[in-house]
Amino acid sequence: MNTFGHIYRLTTFGESHGPAVGGIIDGCPAGFRPDFDELARQMARRRPGSGAAASHRREADGVQFLSGIFEGVTTGTPIGFVIANSDVRSADYTQLRDAWRPSHADYTYDAKYGLRDYRGGGRASARETAARMAGGALAMQILRANGIIITAYTSQIAAIKLPQSYRQLSLADVDSCVLRCPDATAATAMLHAVEQARADGDTLGGVVSCVIRGVSAGLGEPVFGKLQAMLASAMLGIPAAKGFDYGMSFDDIDRRGSEVADIFYNAPDGSVCTRTNHSGGIQGGISNGEDIYFRVAFKPVATLMQPVETIGSDGLPVTLEPAGRHDACVVPRAVPVVEAMAAMTILDALLINRCARL
Amino acid sequence: MNTFGHIYRLTTFGESHGPAVGGIIDGCPAGFRPDFDELARQMARRRPGSGAAASHRREADGVQFLSGIFEGVTTGTPIGFVIANSDVRSADYTQLRDAWRPSHADYTYDAKYGLRDYRGGGRASARETAARMAGGALAMQILRANGIIITAYTSQIAAIKLPQSYRQLSLADVDSCVLRCPDATAATAMLHAVEQARADGDTLGGVVSCVIRGVSAGLGEPVFGKLQAMLASAMLGIPAAKGFDYGMSFDDIDRRGSEVADIFYNAPDGSVCTRTNHSGGIQGGISNGEDIYFRVAFKPVATLMQPVETIGSDGLPVTLEPAGRHDACVVPRAVPVVEAMAAMTILDALLINRCARL
Amino acid sequence: MNTFGHIYRLTTFGESHGPAVGGIIDGCPAGFRPDFDELARQMARRRPGSGAAASHRREADGVQFLSGIFEGVTTGTPIGFVIANSDVRSADYTQLRDAWRPSHADYTYDAKYGLRDYRGGGRASARETAARMAGGALAMQILRANGIIITAYTSQIAAIKLPQSYRQLSLADVDSCVLRCPDATAATAMLHAVEQARADGDTLGGVVSCVIRGVSAGLGEPVFGKLQAMLASAMLGIPAAKGFDYGMSFDDIDRRGSEVADIFYNAPDGSVCTRTNHSGGIQGGISNGEDIYFRVAFKPVATLMQPVETIGSDGLPVTLEPAGRHDACVVPRAVPVVEAMAAMTILDALLINRCARL
Amino acid sequence: MNTFGHIYRLTTFGESHGPAVGGIIDGCPAGFRPDFDELARQMARRRPGSGAAASHRREADGVQFLSGIFEGVTTGTPIGFVIANSDVRSADYTQLRDAWRPSHADYTYDAKYGLRDYRGGGRASARETAARMAGGALAMQILRANGIIITAYTSQIAAIKLPQSYRQLSLADVDSCVLRCPDATAATAMLHAVEQARADGDTLGGVVSCVIRGVSAGLGEPVFGKLQAMLASAMLGIPAAKGFDYGMSFDDIDRRGSEVADIFYNAPDGSVCTRTNHSGGIQGGISNGEDIYFRVAFKPVATLMQPVETIGSDGLPVTLEPAGRHDACVVPRAVPVVEAMAAMTILDALLINRCARL
Repeated sequence: MNTFGHIYRLTTFGESHGPAVGGIIDGCPAGFRPDFDELARQMARRRPGSGAAASHRREADGVQFLSGIFEGVTTGTPIGFVIANSDVRSADYTQLRDAWRPSHADYTYDAKYGLRDYRGGGRASARETAARMAGGALAMQILRANGIIITAYTSQIAAIKLPQSYRQLSLADVDSCVLRCPDATAATAMLHAVEQARADGDTLGGVVSCVIRGVSAGLGEPVFGKLQAMLASAMLGIPAAKGFDYGMSFDDIDRRGSEVADIFYNAPDGSVCTRTNHSGGIQGGISNGEDIYFRVAFKPVATLMQPVETIGSDGLPVTLEPAGRHDACVVPRAVPVVEAMAAMTILDALLINRCARL
Repeated sequence: MNTFGHIYRLTTFGESHGPAVGGIIDGCPAGFRPDFDELARQMARRRPGSGAAASHRREADGVQFLSGIFEGVTTGTPIGFVIANSDVRSADYTQLRDAWRPSHADYTYDAKYGLRDYRGGGRASARETAARMAGGALAMQILRANGIIITAYTSQIAAIKLPQSYRQLSLADVDSCVLRCPDATAATAMLHAVEQARADGDTLGGVVSCVIRGVSAGLGEPVFGKLQAMLASAMLGIPAAKGFDYGMSFDDIDRRGSEVADIFYNAPDGSVCTRTNHSGGIQGGISNGEDIYFRVAFKPVATLMQPVETIGSDGLPVTLEPAGRHDACVVPRAVPVVEAMAAMTILDALLINRCARL
Repeated sequence: MNTFGHIYRLTTFGESHGPAVGGIIDGCPAGFRPDFDELARQMARRRPGSGAAASHRREADGVQFLSGIFEGVTTGTPIGFVIANSDVRSADYTQLRDAWRPSHADYTYDAKYGLRDYRGGGRASARETAARMAGGALAMQILRANGIIITAYTSQIAAIKLPQSYRQLSLADVDSCVLRCPDATAATAMLHAVEQARADGDTLGGVVSCVIRGVSAGLGEPVFGKLQAMLASAMLGIPAAKGFDYGMSFDDIDRRGSEVADIFYNAPDGSVCTRTNHSGGIQGGISNGEDIYFRVAFKPVATLMQPVETIGSDGLPVTLEPAGRHDACVVPRAVPVVEAMAAMTILDALLINRCARL
Repeated sequence: MNTFGHIYRLTTFGESHGPAVGGIIDGCPAGFRPDFDELARQMARRRPGSGAAASHRREADGVQFLSGIFEGVTTGTPIGFVIANSDVRSADYTQLRDAWRPSHADYTYDAKYGLRDYRGGGRASARETAARMAGGALAMQILRANGIIITAYTSQIAAIKLPQSYRQLSLADVDSCVLRCPDATAATAMLHAVEQARADGDTLGGVVSCVIRGVSAGLGEPVFGKLQAMLASAMLGIPAAKGFDYGMSFDDIDRRGSEVADIFYNAPDGSVCTRTNHSGGIQGGISNGEDIYFRVAFKPVATLMQPVETIGSDGLPVTLEPAGRHDACVVPRAVPVVEAMAAMTILDALLINRCARL
């Protein structure tokens, strides 16, 4: 179950403190010429940085491609890649060998498998998302060549929430803000909150919003393969994600049907459009040509920089001292991961849809 | 993509106004003796009834099993079943042949497939969920025999929201309320709101909450097959579902990590427990033995009992007159569907988990 | 594991003596208008008939379609169908409740599942192939509309073997021979052998050869999804099949590489062709545009019309008396099943291949 | 489609002349301690050697494991691995840039993907099987720990065929013969034939036989997942494989049902056995506890050490000069690949079967 997708499929491997993480992209159509500089730029976006919210682990995240690309062009064969884990200090983690951090995967891995690689969270580390970035960054380039643009941004940290819809924001340069929040006022408040939490050895959660523009009508499969179900599965597979909604959010659910019906009209160019977009670009599980937009909630992660009370695998109480390098708020770093997972989902749906008609 | 699940797999077929809906349950373990009376009772729960919120279509929802059960016991071979569409009045729908209802699947099916069965919403009708109920009701019985109990209930309709957590509610007899809301005061207010909406020819949305008790630690696959991702995919595949969250909700996301870390302790019987359960019973994608709980948001459906402005497939404006039989609020009927999808998800995860260790 | 295919997927259900067999065809492209008379004709070809080789069970094999076809055209939604088991005499089989027929699935089903539907072989009966015929007959019509023609025939029964290659035979009217053997002389000898075997209460095996014409270059996936691997899996899934070879057969394996290299040339119309076709139309797992041809070996089935010595589930010796209605040679009836499985395989490969390039 | 298996899944990547081949083993149960020396020994068996039949490319085939194994034990997470392509001389292959070798995958890759990595056959090279060996060697160790032993051997080269059944041969030390033929007399004749073919710049085909002992009854899924169908798919996915049969072979198909029915009896220990084993250990698609045995036919490969006439992608005639390093007979090197694919198939079936019963 380490494979994502149906046609465009990413299989990943790797633990935080092993020699490398990596993956295989299978089903990438032949004939695409990736922009490797752009790909490196995307990889860098996920990397722990020096920003206010980020941990201090530094890695080049250099993706080494091993197959499936010949003379700069995808060949249709699987694209294997590895990303070396260069900045690994396992000694930090020895106290976790026999103790379970609260709200982490330590206990559940032990319960499921009978053992675990305890160094740095092992496979449950956010380090694993580097491999997703590689698969997603390639998908994103293919989508862009097809006129599809995916943009995510931080819309909430702790209690500070952007009041605007995505349409009222300028999303051209989300990364110019260290928190990836496109509203300067809110960003300032968020930054203050993150710094305060970091000073307290604590963490904050938040919400990432994402918009996908340029998807034509017809993507997604009715019933169990609805486009929103594929997206929800993609998003809830991101570490620390707790929730997903699209179009109408949990907050809008109190409205009446007559208020939120998206009335159709013909645009001057003859295309079918809707006056509003409460459907979030998806009706009956299938894209309708309007913008697709959704939110993903992320919890405040439980890796605190303060002593934490727990029990060991022997059942006895233990106090864990803060160690390792950790983010006070993972939300800004989740932004490119949300985009990556969305890109793979949409490209997959686009390829599946090639078989819908004779 | 009309198949749900990996080991316990349900494939469904059927349109609202064809001769039948139905499905095939593949991968049901051999040796289980289903309680068919209980199964019929579950089917009846989804059926449009005479309650305040429901439409007036009536069907026996009698499931005819065609295979896979011999002398009352599952044989391990696929269980084929059909559910006749007995109460079908296609004449109601002729105005939809060439027009697209707002916020329905009419336009997107046309865009994807080039044609559609326009009668009663065709495959996009909630009628399709009858087949899911059959697969889910069987899964639920197998789970119950393994000590796992799934209970869903209406926790919000329109702006009326239960303030309590599921632990503060009595969930023993959710169905005694026509809206499946376990709080009498809220239910009264909800009922009033639904009646008002019905009187206005309008519709209401809401939220279904669901609790799964008795799941042992170890279910769910790390990374792309996280238990919450499987559940989210299951829930977002239900018609009209707009959102999913588990453990900490969108509303709780403003809390700090130190407040929501679930501290471990050993119960008197030696089992590992957590003092709080902000994790919603899942850590790192794997169940930890605590209650699993989540919410599913449902939009107010767009089938209104009032004239609706739209365009036809010729691009010209049309006014659709109200027709057919429709729910003013689908949330109560979604309750058993949420349970059914949850049951199939958990049983599937339980079977997959048999291969986790040597 | 009762699903065949990746995009065009058939899931089947049903036991020999239950109320029905049937299935769901998922992934059939929208917009095809099936010829139902032709479909019924194909179903009839598999049916036990009055021919020299056949058993005497008679069923209409009427396929009742329940969904996925609207106003005569496929809609892209799943096509559910049932085929009633009308001519069922379960009393014939009571002696099999506690005894295992040699070389049947009786013992292995018991070993795997702990129980079995013993009536008429249950799910292991050739009756199950009726559902495959429905899926295959539809696939074959779609292929024919794409210029692809699949023809199978009996090329060996017992020791009587057609010496010719398929190119030297007229395959226009295979069914005019009751044994589906396109060589009159061989057919006469085969018929004699089958009559003799029937008189002795015995059975014969044989070989079905199959030719697929009109497949363009590019179908099949390298490595694990090679077109020959998909075909082999399809064929070895047919009851009583023991072997598969394509292009060069087991008998030709003694030749040298220089003798069997298929030299390329350009046809007058510019297309790339090979002078010989030892590759059987597939190179590196991918079709090359030449005829695809292969053979499937079928054992003499073990349902004899003579007393058979075995043991019961209690471990004690039993003698089984001949009962039921059985073929002396299943090979002619396997001919349409081979075609059906080949048709689904090729259509699936054709759809998968739509995603090979940007 | 570069993934093999359902629970124990191997996904591979890599071209002959890229930096590496490799793969990801997903679904390997946690808690197994691989013997890495034995694994290296298995890898060495596939490697081109200095034997009579082999090509002269030499590589260490050192498998570098990157994840999924912690302190020497499998953790249940995916096992990523790479095998560097160290001995790569791409200059040998420039003449293949624009020309298609007969009976190779050159033309079909171009037809499918519009381009190909022409160096050394690219992904279609036998080099790709190194990654399968890694997945298979691990599976084989797990099976051995469960009492299951898989042994393959060369049973035919060109026209020289072992007359004995596997029961009459000593399979304890197949590798002591350079051709992996366990009959000394036949091996001598085969060796002579191979040397003659090599001297002529020609190639020979042959047959690999394989025996699997120790499989308990119950593995394999009825209908489309029959154990023989999984094995056939595995074997026909090996480069140069042309055919598969099991139990009764194509040569035995002329026998009568009464001759080949495998009569049951109770062994002294109470276990159910059959007096003969024409079923090849599989009945109704499910293992019955007897030895599983099958054959795989391999063609004489078309990479000749003599000038070969063909056409280029421009349609003009070309003569290809012999180049590269190639086997005169691939059959001995296919022996460990047959074992590897069989091991993955059986382990997968064994894991799937854990879900057959409640």
